[in-house]
This record gives sequence, structure tokens and C-alpha cells, in this order.
Amino acid sequence: MLQPLNQVGDAEGCTFDNGTVTTPPGFREAYRTFAEGGWTGLTADPDYGGQGLPLVLGIAIEEMSISANLSFNMYPGLTIGATEAIHAHGTAEQKQTWLPKMISGQWTGTMNLTEPHCGTDLGLLRTRAEPHDDGSYRINGTKIFISAGEHDLTENIIHLVLARIPGGPPGVKGISLFIVPKFLLNDDGTPGERNGVACGAIEEKMGIHGNATCVMNYDDATGYLLGAEHKGLRAMFTMMNAARLGVAMQGLSLAEVAGQNAADYARDRLQGRSLSGPKEPDKPADPIIVHPDVRRMLMEGRAFTEGARAFAYWSALQADLAAKHPDAAVRQSANDLLSLLTPVLKAYFTDRGYAAATQAQQVFGGHGYIREWGMEQFVRDARITQIYEGANGIQGLDLVGRKLPADGGRAIRAFFETVQAFCDENRDDKAMAEFTGPLDEGLGRLQQATMWLMQNAMTTPDNAGAGATDYLYLLALVSLGHVWAQMAKLAQKRLADGDGNAAFYENKLITARYFLQRVMPDSAAHLARVEAGAETLMALDAAAF
Amino acid sequence: MLQPLNQVGDAEGCTFDNGTVTTPPGFREAYRTFAEGGWTGLTADPDYGGQGLPLVLGIAIEEMSISANLSFNMYPGLTIGATEAIHAHGTAEQKQTWLPKMISGQWTGTMNLTEPHCGTDLGLLRTRAEPHDDGSYRINGTKIFISAGEHDLTENIIHLVLARIPGGPPGVKGISLFIVPKFLLNDDGTPGERNGVACGAIEEKMGIHGNATCVMNYDDATGYLLGAEHKGLRAMFTMMNAARLGVAMQGLSLAEVAGQNAADYARDRLQGRSLSGPKEPDKPADPIIVHPDVRRMLMEGRAFTEGARAFAYWSALQADLAAKHPDAAVRQSANDLLSLLTPVLKAYFTDRGYAAATQAQQVFGGHGYIREWGMEQFVRDARITQIYEGANGIQGLDLVGRKLPADGGRAIRAFFETVQAFCDENRDDKAMAEFTGPLDEGLGRLQQATMWLMQNAMTTPDNAGAGATDYLYLLALVSLGHVWAQMAKLAQKRLADGDGNAAFYENKLITARYFLQRVMPDSAAHLARVEAGAETLMALDAAAF
Repeated sequence: MLQPLNQVGDAEGCTFDNGTVTTPPGFREAYRTFAEGGWTGLTADPDYGGQGLPLVLGIAIEEMSISANLSFNMYPGLTIGATEAIHAHGTAEQKQTWLPKMISGQWTGTMNLTEPHCGTDLGLLRTRAEPHDDGSYRINGTKIFISAGEHDLTENIIHLVLARIPGGPPGVKGISLFIVPKFLLNDDGTPGERNGVACGAIEEKMGIHGNATCVMNYDDATGYLLGAEHKGLRAMFTMMNAARLGVAMQGLSLAEVAGQNAADYARDRLQGRSLSGPKEPDKPADPIIVHPDVRRMLMEGRAFTEGARAFAYWSALQADLAAKHPDAAVRQSANDLLSLLTPVLKAYFTDRGYAAATQAQQVFGGHGYIREWGMEQFVRDARITQIYEGANGIQGLDLVGRKLPADGGRAIRAFFETVQAFCDENRDDKAMAEFTGPLDEGLGRLQQATMWLMQNAMTTPDNAGAGATDYLYLLALVSLGHVWAQMAKLAQKRLADGDGNAAFYENKLITARYFLQRVMPDSAAHLARVEAGAETLMALDAAAF
Repeated sequence: MLQPLNQVGDAEGCTFDNGTVTTPPGFREAYRTFAEGGWTGLTADPDYGGQGLPLVLGIAIEEMSISANLSFNMYPGLTIGATEAIHAHGTAEQKQTWLPKMISGQWTGTMNLTEPHCGTDLGLLRTRAEPHDDGSYRINGTKIFISAGEHDLTENIIHLVLARIPGGPPGVKGISLFIVPKFLLNDDGTPGERNGVACGAIEEKMGIHGNATCVMNYDDATGYLLGAEHKGLRAMFTMMNAARLGVAMQGLSLAEVAGQNAADYARDRLQGRSLSGPKEPDKPADPIIVHPDVRRMLMEGRAFTEGARAFAYWSALQADLAAKHPDAAVRQSANDLLSLLTPVLKAYFTDRGYAAATQAQQVFGGHGYIREWGMEQFVRDARITQIYEGANGIQGLDLVGRKLPADGGRAIRAFFETVQAFCDENRDDKAMAEFTGPLDEGLGRLQQATMWLMQNAMTTPDNAGAGATDYLYLLALVSLGHVWAQMAKLAQKRLADGDGNAAFYENKLITARYFLQRVMPDSAAHLARVEAGAETLMALDAAAF
């Protein structure tokens, strides 16, 4: 249902006409089917019509939906974020008013943060919210880059909008969050009068053409305060982990679907002969999957997607534990690890997702550059994931500036202990040495980089910024290396037990080996770059660039 | 003239109507001005109207032209390749007939290699060339991905076409090269009757929309044999070095223009405060160029483009020496090095060019994803450079399979000696240690990788394929490291002499330091991957991917 609409969504895109946005052909029907099937409320609170399923299941479904059609997935995907914000910060009445129809998919939701002069630095935000006698607010301002800000899929759209209440503190401490529906509600809860919010234009973009990226104009729009006055940013942040994990899944999902296509092509396309002699002598040439360099591209994608998927499931499990486990200590520990690793998930998965999509495209040679094959769309679509929901450079800063030092480094120490314990437990297992050896080495480099930052970033904060991205990559490599080593351990056990599909476990071992042999060595260069510090980066005069 | 047409070329693209291709608005006028200015014949033979300037000057001009408008540049750029083939392999009469008007820009030229089932593996080629009584041939077949195969810029288009003469040997040994003009010539040399070649369609692509990528149908077209029968591939290969250096320049040029735009944006865009305290306290925020991670992106681009430019000039000089030096030993040595390093130039420059364009786009945040800023076009245009003129994986195979073992490894040994001599000469120069140290280390890794391939690729050829791309990167790092260390040496001398612009030389030292501190460390991982061999790559069953 979704995959057949992916290319038409790209080719036709959304169209804008005087405030109205029309989604690509087929999107309306697909959305109706999607919502009617209950897919919009999988992980939502049953008290408001959700199915209450764990996030670990939610993201597994999410991956398939994104692989099929990212642009489509964003309409219900962004709704989940808005729903969670209302669920976490709304009054009982607000929750009763908005959640059931958002969870059922009858309405969608959006997040309105960015303004033309203000992206990462939300302290510069100018949109105003004037209190009104009836307790509501009048919102005025312009927001840009609002995904799914306007469309024809649902009868109402619920915007969550960051704005300033006059008289509040300057900067990020004076920002509040508001619910601003496209249509105000009648007393019976149905959409009534049009609110003072309208889409002024949609952007021409590199990709995700099937999703409307809107300029939203708020002109005396009625808004309802969500959460406390001036605490809007905190409210936004509470759902950041989930939203960023969602974008991480986008990177993974596009790598996966691009990789599946590349593998199919590599099995079909006949070109050249194997270096070790013809493999299909009765054909005019061998399929290109016989060439080691083609396999290198496929294996690199595979080692990423399989490792990333396992890591994502584990991360979603931490989110579920943090939200629902009865033991406060377990909740805290899960929340620590999830918070620490969220920027890693977001930045590494999307950088690698883009790289993997590009490499899958490369397998197609010239055909990869041609629209009809669909590969170049994966690359264009993947590119946005590195940018939105906090550009990847910001993820590095979030990691080294906030997550690493939080609570005296409690989270990173717990991470070290977990990985170290795994290496120690398996130290005498000879069959595990090829996995634990490189993992242990990577962990040592990560610890060394951490120490370096602790010693050098306090006195010279630019050292933290200079090493942020490389530190993030180093943590990502150790995280995925840990996951791969665990999978190898289990695969060995299953094979020894003669349990299940032997080929499946053999392939896991091969791919684990690929990761630890051929990907983990990058950790040395990342450490070198962290330790190189800020000096060379900051030395050039700005005008000299 | 060219830069203002770059975005319109992308937005409007070429249009196809019943065999006719119309280039984007403004391209015709720009092409006329370009040709009238003499820019099409800069490096061509003065005997046929060229200016006989060295390639080292030609590529310097080329860079500016490509940075301004890649799609436009390809029309005259591809003509140079065709001109060189006719110059090298044509009879005196052929040269007199075709060259003057191609060099003057009155006609353009194309290269026709690829067929639907045959890209890299030209042995599968099917286009036929039947001898005709008058000494010409009748060409029949279909070629795809023919850049500039049809357009409205010139009164004639001269296609060079690979085809098989019936009765020749199978595979690549039975391929011949033909001159096939769009219009046959009248006795006075002016275009006359239409030849049996027509554009059947143009491709919808990811980028380079301003250049028509054509399906070319040959239907009893008259062609003239260029060079010897069945030696067409060799004729093609003679101009491969120049063509691949040209594509390398495309990678560099797009990185350069994208980087210039990113630097401008980073100086203008106000967002956040410097980690070391506000730099422009009177403004609402600091320009983002104060942030180390933004500088990391800019410096990475800069360390690539400046190093790559110096390396490209040096390579073009080798081409000039190989073509024109009176001493045969100098010609041979220059040709050795150029042949060895051509795949490095092509693959590394275009991979890095794409990465640098992507990173420059990243500096723009969300704005980078929007069409009107122009950044995403650089990325889409850069993507093709990794694919055409031999996909980058093929460059690695050319390097380890052909170039490395050629003449008993004479070229790579000469390369080692040159770099080693530089390190040795500067061993006691303390001020050079920060440059020669990492270079020496990189060289050691490259030598180790070379040794490993020698010892392991003969018995297991897949080991060569498995390490090809990483070996190429390792050679690229040492090549650019060498260039950077040489520039550092010269900068130190100029500074010591108080000679010229001190800031310029200081900036060279800073950028050299960046490269050797932060880029060269990747050499360790490349070595590890070469030494990992083919086993992990080849272990998975093709069906399991």
C-alpha cells in the first residue's frame, strides 16, 4: 500500500494552491486505510484509544513503514510526537479533547519550532502569544520547515507551537508551548471555525517531496497553553528522545531498503568475470555479486543495518523500561543509557544511513543515477535525516556538552561497565576472541577519549566542540561493536546447541566479523581527532575561509 | 556568464521532443560566447587551431568553469576527449576534417561506450559496424548514458562510437572505434545530409539536468574507422588518463564552490554563542563560524580542496611532461606516475568531492535542503562523478590489478622513493616534524599494504579486489599528505624569508596541520581493511544478501 506510492510521491510531490496543500495521488486513500487499520495508535495510551504496545514493537513496525515510504510515514510519525507531548504535559481535559482523535488518526499533529532566523538557537524565537480573557492565547508569528503543516489527509491538524508570552524571561527560559488547531473545536469536539493559522507556501526541496514542508503563518490564532508558562522548551525536550530515535530509524530504514534493492541488482546484473574464475560460465558474464568490491559495499550496508537494528531495539527497550518498569532504579538506569545514546542513535544512524543509501546506489552504476530505478530517491530522502530534529553536529554537542557530564558521568560509567563486563566474561573464550579483542580495543580508545575530554574541555571548552562528532562516532562504534559481539556469542551458542537455522547464525557470525574487522578500526582515527583538540580548527581567521 | 545559468539549468533541464533536445534557457548564448572567446581550444594542438597551452593551465581554467556550471562544462569538456582521440588515432585527413571545427567549438564531440546490458564490461558490447564499399561502415545499435549526445548548441555533433566489425575476435579484442557525425559532411566540409543516428530519449536523473543524457540509436549510420580495426579499446584508453583527471576536477570543483558558499553562510548566519564566550555580544547571537564543529566541516573541505588542487596541478604537469618533454626517461617516469595515480585522482577526488559538498550543505542546516539555496544541487551534481568515467570501485581495481603490477611495480616504487626521499631530507628539520612524522607513518602503512597485496593477491585474486578501494584511499592519503608537507615546507621558507603574504603562508601551515593531524590517521583503518582480506566479504552465500 505504501511502497507503491513512494516513487509517485517523489515525482508528483505535494502541490500548493492559495493555502491548500494537496498530497500526491493515492496518499489520501492510503492514509485512510492506515488509520482504519489501527497503525497510528500502536504504542499510544489505551486510555485514549491506543493499543499500549511497547516501543520496541513500535519501532519494528516503523522501520517497515519508513522503508516503504518515508514521506508518507512522516504524517502519522509526527503525530506521535505531538501526541506524546500532550500526553505528558496536558491537563486531563486537554488530553480528553485532543488525544483520542490524534491517536485514531482522525487528526494529525505537528511540531512548530523553527523560524526564519532561528533554528538550532531557539533563544532567538520571536513568535508571540498574548493572553486572552478566556484563558486562551492569541498567537502571532511565522514558522518555517513545518513538516506536514498542511495537507488534505485529515479533517483537522493540531499544531504544537513554541512562542513567547510577553513579559517572560529572554532567551530559552521564556518560551512556552501551545496547542493551536487548524480548526477550532465546536462544543461537541468536532472541528468548527477556521483558526488564524495558514500555510503560506511549501518548500521546493531535495527530497521527501511527498511530505509538505510548510511555512506556517500565525495571525491571531487561538492557542491553548500546554504545560507551564515559560517551560515550553522542557516540554519539547521530554519527547526529544523518542523523536530522535524515530529519525534514527529513518536512517536505518532507508539504508535497509536501498541495500535490499542493491543486493537484488547485484545478483541479477551480469558484468565481468570473477577474479577467481568464471562462476556462471554458461552466461555471458557473472553476476556482479561475485566481485569483492561489490560485496564490500553490500556487506558494509548489512553490517550497519543489522547492527543498528539490534541496537535500536535495545534502545527502544530502554525507553519502555524507563517509562514503565516498576523499579525506580531500573527506570533511572534505562533512562540514563537512553539519554546518553540518543544523540548517537540520531547522528550515527542517519550519517551511516545516507552513506549506505549512496553506496547501494553505487552498486547500480549509471542506472543508480537514473530516476526510474528509485535508488537516487533513497539518497535524496535520506539526506534530510542528518539535518532535521537537531542537525547531526548538534547531536555531538548534546552528547559531550550535556549527556556525558550529566550526573557526574553516571551514564557513561554505566556504559563502560556493561561493555567491560562483557569483554571480561568472555576473555577466556577463544572462539569469542576475534570479536571481544577489537571491542576491547575500541572501548579502551573510547575511555581514553573520554578522559581526554574531561581533562581538556573544562579549561578550553572549544576542545569539547572540536571533538564532539568524532567522540560520538567512537561511542557509536563501541555500541554497535558490543551489540555485534553479543549477537556473535548467541549465534555460537545456537550453533553449538544445533538450535534453529544454522545458516542464519553462520551469517550473523560472518557479519559480526565484518564489523569488528573492517569497521571498528576507524575508532583509532576518531580518537586521534578527539585528541587533536580545537587549536587547528580555530586558528584560521574567519575572513580567511 | 556560466554561474548564473547553473540553477536555471537544474530547474529547467533539457527537454526532449521527437529526437530534438533543447538545452536550458541561456545555454545557447553562453556556449556561443564561450566558443568565440577561444575557451574550447586552450590546450589543443595549434596545427588545428588550438592554443597549445599546457594541461596544467587547462585544468586550472577547467576548475572555474566546472564550479560555475558542471552541466554546461560537460558540452565542451567531452569534446576535448573526442578531439584527443581523433588527434591520437586519426589519419591526417581525418584530423584535418574533424579537428578544426571541434577545437573552435563549432562542433561538439561525444563518447559512446555504454549499452543497456554493458557498462563496465565492454566485452559484452553488441553494436555492429558493417564495412561498406566506400571504406566507411554502417553502424547499428543502441548506446545509453551518452552525455551531450544531442543538443541545440552546435550545427554538428561528432560521435565516437565503439562497435564490433563482424568476424572480429569476441570480447574486448574485437571492438573498433568509429567517427559518426550527426550530419554527414558536404565536399566543402560543411554539414550536409542527416546521418542515421538519432536521440531516442533523454534520461530523468538525480542531477546534471542541464546536460542531456541520451539514448542514441544508430540505424545504418555512416561511420569512419578511427585507428586500427579491433583496436578500439586501446584507442579509448589512450585518452582515459585525461578524461579521468577531468572528472577528478569535477569532484574538486564542486567541493570548492560548495565550500565557498558554506563559508559565506557560516560568517553570516547568527546562531548560538561561542563556547568560549560571546564573540559578537552586540548581536543577538554569534555567527556560526565560531563553533568548532562548523569549522571542522569547513576545514575538512578546505584541507581537501587545497591539497587536491596542488596534487591535480602536479598530475597535469606529469601529463604535460609525458606528452612533450624531450627526454624519453622523463616522459616515461611522468607517464608512470600519472598512470599510477589517475585512478586515485578520479575516485578519491570524486568521493571526497561528494562528501565535501554534502558537508557544505550540512553547514546550512535546514536551508541546505531547500532548492533555492543551491547547495543540494551541488550534492546531486557531484554524485554522478563517482559513477561515470569508470565507477569508483573500478578505479580501485584498475589501480591494484593493472597499475600496481605494471612493469614490475616500477611506478609505485618510484612513488615510494619520492615520498621517502622527502621525509629523509627533512628528518632533522624539527619544524617539519609535525608534517613528516604522520606522512612517514602513512607511507609505512602504504608500503605494508602493498607488500600484503603482493604476498596475498597472487594466490587469492579476490584479496586484491577486497582491498582495492582501501588501498586506493591509502595511496590518496599519502599523495595528499606529501603535497601538504611540501606546501608546509615552502610556507615555512617563505615566512622565514619574510617573502610575500605572511597570512597566506600561515594559513597554509594551519591547513597542512589539519590534514596531517586529522585526515592522515584514517590510513591505519585502510591498512587494517586491506589486511583483512577477502574471506569475510566472500563468505556469505549470494542468496543470503
